[in-house]
Amino acid sequence: MQEINIVKVGGKVIDNEDARNAFLAKLANIKKNIVLVHGGGKVANQVLESMGIEPKMVNGRRITDAETLKVVTMVYTGLINKTITAKLNSFGRKSVGISGVDGVLLDAVKRPVKDIDYGFAGDITADGVNAQLLVNLVKDGYTPVIATIAADKNAQLLNINADTVASTLAAGLSKIVKTNLYFCFEKKGVLMNAEDDNSVIPVLNKQNYPELLSKGIFADGMIPKLENAFKTLEQGVDKVIIGNSNDIENFFSENHAGTLISK
Amino acid sequence: MQEINIVKVGGKVIDNEDARNAFLAKLANIKKNIVLVHGGGKVANQVLESMGIEPKMVNGRRITDAETLKVVTMVYTGLINKTITAKLNSFGRKSVGISGVDGVLLDAVKRPVKDIDYGFAGDITADGVNAQLLVNLVKDGYTPVIATIAADKNAQLLNINADTVASTLAAGLSKIVKTNLYFCFEKKGVLMNAEDDNSVIPVLNKQNYPELLSKGIFADGMIPKLENAFKTLEQGVDKVIIGNSNDIENFFSENHAGTLISK
Repeated sequence: MQEINIVKVGGKVIDNEDARNAFLAKLANIKKNIVLVHGGGKVANQVLESMGIEPKMVNGRRITDAETLKVVTMVYTGLINKTITAKLNSFGRKSVGISGVDGVLLDAVKRPVKDIDYGFAGDITADGVNAQLLVNLVKDGYTPVIATIAADKNAQLLNINADTVASTLAAGLSKIVKTNLYFCFEKKGVLMNAEDDNSVIPVLNKQNYPELLSKGIFADGMIPKLENAFKTLEQGVDKVIIGNSNDIENFFSENHAGTLISK
Repeated sequence: MQEINIVKVGGKVIDNEDARNAFLAKLANIKKNIVLVHGGGKVANQVLESMGIEPKMVNGRRITDAETLKVVTMVYTGLINKTITAKLNSFGRKSVGISGVDGVLLDAVKRPVKDIDYGFAGDITADGVNAQLLVNLVKDGYTPVIATIAADKNAQLLNINADTVASTLAAGLSKIVKTNLYFCFEKKGVLMNAEDDNSVIPVLNKQNYPELLSKGIFADGMIPKLENAFKTLEQGVDKVIIGNSNDIENFFSENHAGTLISK
């Protein structure tokens, strides 16, 4: 196998049926080995509210109490995972929807309580990835579709941030196969000027990143994503691209869409 | 591969955490190739009620409207499937939880409306089983855990009766590998006398079945199960056993627990 491409998608592409189907139709036609990691969007919050449970977030991260864990498990590994998988199949791309639980794809531990108690949130490492499971599915012609729930050694289910799942899977996979990582989000890439959607920085690397960082170019929310991207490169991932989900087919061309993050 | 054993479990074994864990602990230790098909138990009804939706059943079969479909998808392919899979993994039996959607394991069509409109209920056939997906997972050392939701060619999710999924998977698998089918329920087997739990009929076959049927031995609910068992034998399944989930380890011995249904 030449390489595996991990694509992470979330936000509106999950929430909005038309946007989701348009994205999946494009993805279905890409002649590359893909593993799709999906976030949960707002559907989990809607289900929580319909059950009279108030969603709890701190700094954009979910606080997962026992009831919330049940709902996010149902929504992420059930409704969203099977909706996406069925759609890819209907577009002719045979896909298998699993989660970090399955085949112990992600060997998780409950996050220790420090300043904030995140509840049933999981921490994962590249060493705890069952990369062979994904490689086997891809070799057999399937596109794995990954929901971001995993379990610890006592079968406690745990909720994990989707960006973290994508990065960790990529780092784990890169030990046995060349792996690229693609983050889809709502901007066209990392912007030089937050006000100008067309000011995409085509390449970020160790040379230009520190300088741009010190100039205060990056939005606050972007800095952890970039730090994380550089870390996955250190762990063995070949390249990381951050771009808009509408441009998914163009992520794979030589003159790639989005921002390429390289060593 | 010598053979695959499909085990179907539902009812209390799904609903009750202690019963479920005791069953899974036994299952985890069986040194055979197993595919586990699970029903939904009462959890789906509890979630429906918590969302203010009244469960609708006709003759013991669920009427699946659009809202109910979302909930059963969430509960079966999400909560229950991942809870079971995580538990089997924690017991040392590496398992992968999927559904009929995944890899088009079950190519379903929406049930045509005749006397009763079952809503988003699916019909499936042995010819529409992706047996190779299960064989590959088993060859790779995994126990597939199957939730009973599938999709049609347009990605419409559909709810399917768990007994039907187990029988159809067995019939489909039997075309490429020797396949046995085990139905777990609450009695010790098919009873000669409904009042006597120990009156298990050890073997039912084409010789003694018509005679016992004409004598009115079988409870009404048992007759379709038995007709179905004989049909799967005609389709190529090697043997069918109906017995109590507590006896799961003894289903596989020569002097089997439960009622063996054979040609």
